[in-house]
Amino acid sequence: MELLKTTVASIEKQDQSFRTQARARLEQLTMPHWALGRLMDLAEDLAGMTRSMTPPVERRTIVTMAGDHGIADEGVSAFPQEVTMQMVHNFVNEGAGINALAKLNNANVVVVDIGVAGDLSELANTGKIISKKIAPGTANMVKGPAMTEAEAIAAIEVGIEIANELAESTDIFGTGDMGIANTSPSTAILAAVTGMSVADITGRGTGIEDKQLSHKIAMIEKALEVNAPDATDGIDLLSKVGGFEIGGIAGLILAAATQKKPVIIDGFISTAGALIAQLIAPDCTDYIIAAHCSVEPGHKAMLKRLGKSALLDLNLRLGEGTGSALAMNLVDASVRVLTEISTFEEAHVSEGN
Amino acid sequence: MELLKTTVASIEKQDQSFRTQARARLEQLTMPHWALGRLMDLAEDLAGMTRSMTPPVERRTIVTMAGDHGIADEGVSAFPQEVTMQMVHNFVNEGAGINALAKLNNANVVVVDIGVAGDLSELANTGKIISKKIAPGTANMVKGPAMTEAEAIAAIEVGIEIANELAESTDIFGTGDMGIANTSPSTAILAAVTGMSVADITGRGTGIEDKQLSHKIAMIEKALEVNAPDATDGIDLLSKVGGFEIGGIAGLILAAATQKKPVIIDGFISTAGALIAQLIAPDCTDYIIAAHCSVEPGHKAMLKRLGKSALLDLNLRLGEGTGSALAMNLVDASVRVLTEISTFEEAHVSEGN
Repeated sequence: MELLKTTVASIEKQDQSFRTQARARLEQLTMPHWALGRLMDLAEDLAGMTRSMTPPVERRTIVTMAGDHGIADEGVSAFPQEVTMQMVHNFVNEGAGINALAKLNNANVVVVDIGVAGDLSELANTGKIISKKIAPGTANMVKGPAMTEAEAIAAIEVGIEIANELAESTDIFGTGDMGIANTSPSTAILAAVTGMSVADITGRGTGIEDKQLSHKIAMIEKALEVNAPDATDGIDLLSKVGGFEIGGIAGLILAAATQKKPVIIDGFISTAGALIAQLIAPDCTDYIIAAHCSVEPGHKAMLKRLGKSALLDLNLRLGEGTGSALAMNLVDASVRVLTEISTFEEAHVSEGN
Repeated sequence: MELLKTTVASIEKQDQSFRTQARARLEQLTMPHWALGRLMDLAEDLAGMTRSMTPPVERRTIVTMAGDHGIADEGVSAFPQEVTMQMVHNFVNEGAGINALAKLNNANVVVVDIGVAGDLSELANTGKIISKKIAPGTANMVKGPAMTEAEAIAAIEVGIEIANELAESTDIFGTGDMGIANTSPSTAILAAVTGMSVADITGRGTGIEDKQLSHKIAMIEKALEVNAPDATDGIDLLSKVGGFEIGGIAGLILAAATQKKPVIIDGFISTAGALIAQLIAPDCTDYIIAAHCSVEPGHKAMLKRLGKSALLDLNLRLGEGTGSALAMNLVDASVRVLTEISTFEEAHVSEGN
């Protein structure tokens, strides 16, 4: 708890003077006013986050947190639980979506076993993944809390530790997740925080059919009923209806904010992690960049609650950090807009009226 | 006219067998079905365009066509006409938005003077731009045709010639434009093609105020009334209410289609060029990728008419090819999805139900 406390205590908001300085330059670039729209908004944010007119974004680390979920026993996913472990092997073998897209945009992928229901010690021992396993999967939240309060704090602190370890080699973080059934806890978190109806925000996750969808809705409703989480308390909410990787993502976001480094959040599961982080330390959202709006029906409401609009909308629903990887290019673009384009004066171009 | 005719005659649609082959692989990738959404749609398109399961997209050329517009005399823009020429210098000096974003995504920028109202011969003589000037700006379309039919054909053929010259060193094209007042002809083209009301689709272009906007609407309406273009005839439409750069962009698109190479179209002006190309050879749209949806209120309708949905929506309204440059990264991502991600079988991952 000590690490979490000191991390939260040292989060500061974006720096207004760097925002103002960035805006002043952006308004003088050789183009109609703010003609590069969201890239310019983002450039202003990046200056405010990093306290720099040349925000560093070269060294990119996507942390993909893998964990399993007891609620998988209820048949809420189209895939068997063993796929979480298989996909960790796929990440290590560079065969997954995140590998291809991270490579494209020069991001390093760090895979963390924070709670996979299977033995990944060989990959951990050979340094191919980081092992911070809290337990082999959460408990089934339909029958009781997904984890203890101590485990919830531990999950968040895993994210903080990892971000702190990576800080020296990282300018910008991206989040990612892997965990069969993890749209269920993410949906439960959203429902609890917003009071929205579970039926309205539950999606097909990996691709379930109508009948399974109704069952998934019923199971999430039951988990909320059985556990009655305190939706104003991030740790209680995470422990009752969350997941280890969701907690790890929350911790990563909190630590990035403490480090004054931007953190790109991926899709539905990462944004659930961001909601937990927001509950714990509202100012951390100053450092969050939302990569994309997912196919999951609740994602829009989640982003709204977080106060973010997504950069991309490409019908993605994969997770792993794939959206974060894609958005890295737009972050880089924003920095270049701020640093490489000439002003009217520099380029001897006439200004508009 | 001969070059245009032979170009149009040799356009073939996308290859269905390569589309099918690509889809078959994409459906077997280690992820829920089609979980990378629009990237997978695009990968299927790229295979169909290039007749390849490894669509080449490494060598990227953005052609930025610059031209002036007689209608600028009517005060429809927030910037003076001289800015077109000044911005060409800015492109050459690498100080513009397109330079920063093209560099980011490894695209080469080729600047073409197809009708700038000013002397750019020094830049042309030193090889810094390509000079294919048809005239120093179009005539004022409020008073008569923007150009003759011969000039319209010449403008399109400039685009074809340039694409043909660049073909050997280009895997994928991007379009771009520079021309003060060019949202006016683009809006006129859209109104003529769709029958939509000019008032509904006219935007603020470089950033004009309410009074100037009303005047711009009136001028575009007058140009359509005075010229009564045949909206089913791309050449007539271009000559009456178009622009040289719009014709050049149309030609570039037609030639890319003939070459079976993808062509990314930028914003509002490039899409007006695409509408002209579509009128001349409807099958050319098989090779078009729409980069982004612009702030210009008519752009959405334009893309709909073209049958395309944009990859990005970032409140851009700059032109120059900046949207094309950004979208290059997503095209690259799509190719990597097709070529670098393992299938369930390759990765020994269990399939879903």
